[in-house]
Amino acid sequence: MNQRLYRLFSYLDESIDCLLIKNGGVTNIDPTFFYLTGLEQGLFEGCILVAHRDGTLDLIVSELEAELAEAAKASLHLFSGREQRDHFLKKLLKNMGTISFNGTVLTYKDMILFKELFSSSTFVDVHDDVQQCRLVKDPDELGKIKKACGIADKVAGRIPAVVESSMTEDELAACIDYELQRAGAQHPAFTTIASFGSHSSQPHFTHSDTPLKTADVILCDFGACFQRYNSDLTRTFVYSQANEEFKAMHQIVLEAQQVAFDMIQPGVKAAAVHQAVADFIDASPFKGWFIHSTGHALGLEVHDGPGFSQQSDLILEENMVFTVEPGVYKKGAYGVRIEDDIVVTRTGCQLLTNSDRSLLQIR
Amino acid sequence: MNQRLYRLFSYLDESIDCLLIKNGGVTNIDPTFFYLTGLEQGLFEGCILVAHRDGTLDLIVSELEAELAEAAKASLHLFSGREQRDHFLKKLLKNMGTISFNGTVLTYKDMILFKELFSSSTFVDVHDDVQQCRLVKDPDELGKIKKACGIADKVAGRIPAVVESSMTEDELAACIDYELQRAGAQHPAFTTIASFGSHSSQPHFTHSDTPLKTADVILCDFGACFQRYNSDLTRTFVYSQANEEFKAMHQIVLEAQQVAFDMIQPGVKAAAVHQAVADFIDASPFKGWFIHSTGHALGLEVHDGPGFSQQSDLILEENMVFTVEPGVYKKGAYGVRIEDDIVVTRTGCQLLTNSDRSLLQIR
Repeated sequence: MNQRLYRLFSYLDESIDCLLIKNGGVTNIDPTFFYLTGLEQGLFEGCILVAHRDGTLDLIVSELEAELAEAAKASLHLFSGREQRDHFLKKLLKNMGTISFNGTVLTYKDMILFKELFSSSTFVDVHDDVQQCRLVKDPDELGKIKKACGIADKVAGRIPAVVESSMTEDELAACIDYELQRAGAQHPAFTTIASFGSHSSQPHFTHSDTPLKTADVILCDFGACFQRYNSDLTRTFVYSQANEEFKAMHQIVLEAQQVAFDMIQPGVKAAAVHQAVADFIDASPFKGWFIHSTGHALGLEVHDGPGFSQQSDLILEENMVFTVEPGVYKKGAYGVRIEDDIVVTRTGCQLLTNSDRSLLQIR
Repeated sequence: MNQRLYRLFSYLDESIDCLLIKNGGVTNIDPTFFYLTGLEQGLFEGCILVAHRDGTLDLIVSELEAELAEAAKASLHLFSGREQRDHFLKKLLKNMGTISFNGTVLTYKDMILFKELFSSSTFVDVHDDVQQCRLVKDPDELGKIKKACGIADKVAGRIPAVVESSMTEDELAACIDYELQRAGAQHPAFTTIASFGSHSSQPHFTHSDTPLKTADVILCDFGACFQRYNSDLTRTFVYSQANEEFKAMHQIVLEAQQVAFDMIQPGVKAAAVHQAVADFIDASPFKGWFIHSTGHALGLEVHDGPGFSQQSDLILEENMVFTVEPGVYKKGAYGVRIEDDIVVTRTGCQLLTNSDRSLLQIR
C-alpha cells in the first residue's frame, strides 16, 4: 500500500481514475515520479508512471534502468524503444475514463501524444492538487530534509576555515561543493553561489574567476541533496573588515528573518509573512532594497512550490517546509542574504538549520 | 545582430513572426533561452524571451536578475510580479499572427496561458527546427565545448591518483567533482557516477556509501559544465587486479568505440553508426549486453538532442557534437563503458576528449 498515493488521491476529484506522470529529457523530470515511487537512484528519462486510485503503481521503464526500478513498489513494464513504451501505455490506460496529469511539468508535446493515444478519455490537469499534496511532508520526507539541512549546516560552519587570501569565487564554490559531498550530500542541491564584493548585490550571480580582496563581502548560498531531498542555506561574511553600512544591513536582515520566524504557524497566510518582512525592511534605511520573496517551499525540488511571496495565496499547514531568506542589496556595492530552512509545527515553526547567523569577519 | 537568431529563422517557416520561449521553474528552464541570449550567469525562472525574425530579442525578466540580464543583446522589460510580466507579453505580442514555441520544454500549463492571452494568434510547435538548429554548433559554442572537454580529460587523468584503499563511491564522486571545479568547471555537468563492483553493471547508478574492495571495477562517468556548455566522459578502471572476462569486455568496448569513430562523417545516418557498434558487440561473446544507445548530442544540454540510436532519423552534419559511449554490462557482476566526445568534421570526426582509454589497474 502506497500511503503517498492514498494521500494524493484524497486531493483529487472522485471522477479521476489515474495520475499519469511522464518524464521528458534531463531538463524535464517530474519530481512527483520520485515522490510516488520512492526511487533514490536513477534518472528515468522518458519513463512513465501510472498511479491508480487503488494505491498501486505501474511503471513503464527503460531496460537501461530495470535494475534500479526494482526498488519501487510498482509493477514494472520494461521497454527498449518508444513503440514498445507506447504499447504498454495503451494497454494500461485503455479503460480509463478520466486521466489526470501534472501540467506544470508535462510538456506540450507529450500532452499531444497522450491526447492522440487516448482520444476518448478526458484529461484533467491536477498540478495544483499535486503541489498541495507535496507541500505537506510525511515523516520519511522530513527525515531526509533534516539530514540535508544538517549537512548544509556543517558546511556553513566550515566556510571561515576554508576561505583563503586571494582565492577565487570558483575555488570557494569548489570547496563548498566538496565539503557538501564529504559530509554526505549526494550532490549540491543547486549551483552553489560564492559571490564576492559587488557580485553579492546580484542575488543569482553564481561564481567566477574573481579573486577575494580585503573588505569584500562573501555571500555563500548552497544546499545539500540527500536521497533526492534538498536543503538551501545562505550565510554572508566579510573578509577582514566590514564598514558600518554593511554591518547595519546585516543586522536588519537578521531581524527581518526573526520577524518571519515569529509569525509562522498553521493558519497564517504565507503572503502576510512576506508582507511583514518587507514592511520591516522598508521601515529601515534600506527601503526598496529587498527585491525578492521571503522564501519558497523546499523538498524534492529546491523550489518545491509556492512560499512567502506577495502573490501567494497559500495558507500555512503543519509539516510544510520552507526557506526563510530575507536579503538587502545595494546595487553595484554589496548584498546580504540570510537563509534558513524551517518546518511548520503545530504551534509555530522549527528551524532545521542552525549554524551561526551573526556577521563573521573572516581573518 | 544576433547570428544565432538568423540561423534559427532559416529553419522556420516563413509565416512565423516570432519564437516565444518561456522558462518555468528550476526543472523547466529552456536551454534555447541561453542559446539565443548568450547569458552565462543567472537562473531566469519564469522569464520570457521573444525572438523576432528581424534578429532582435525582447527579454521579459524579473527585477531580481536585471543586472545579470544586461549582458544579453536584448531589450529588457523588468517585472516584479506576474501581472506585470503578462502585461509586457501582451504588449510585445499584440500584432503577432503566428507565434512559434518549443513544445518539448514549454509546459502544458504555460501553453494554456499563451492561448488565453493571444486567442486570435496561431501557435506553431517548432521544437524539431529548434533542435536541428542547435545540433550544429557555431565556433563560439565549439570553443566552450572544447574547454569543457579539456577539463574532463584533465580530471580523468587524475582519477588513478585520487583513488584510495577502502574509499566510498560517495568520496570518489566528491573528489571528481572537486577536481572538475578546480580545473575550471562552473559545476559538474550532471550527477557524477562513481560506481564500484556490481554497481557498475547498472548504467545509471550514481554513487553510495559502498567502500572500494580489491578487484572491484571502478566506473566513472562525469563531465564539466563550462559557460553553460557540457562535456561527458566515462572511463572504467579496475582496482588492483582484473579477471580475464573483464579484460576481454573492456577490449571489445574499446574496439566498438573505434568502429563508431571510423564511420562518423557528414551524410552518414546516426542510426547506422549505432547499428554497426551493436552488431560489433553482438558478434562478440558479450552479445545482448549492450543495452543503451551509442551516444547523444552534446552542448547546452548534456543530452542536447538525438544521437546514435536505433530510433534516430538524424543524418550527421559538420560541427555536430556527440558522445560515443558503447558499454557492456554483466548483470550483478560488472560493467564497462568508455565514453568520449567528438565533433563531426568535413571528412570524419575529431575527438574532443583524449585521455588514456586503456584498461588501467589502479595500485
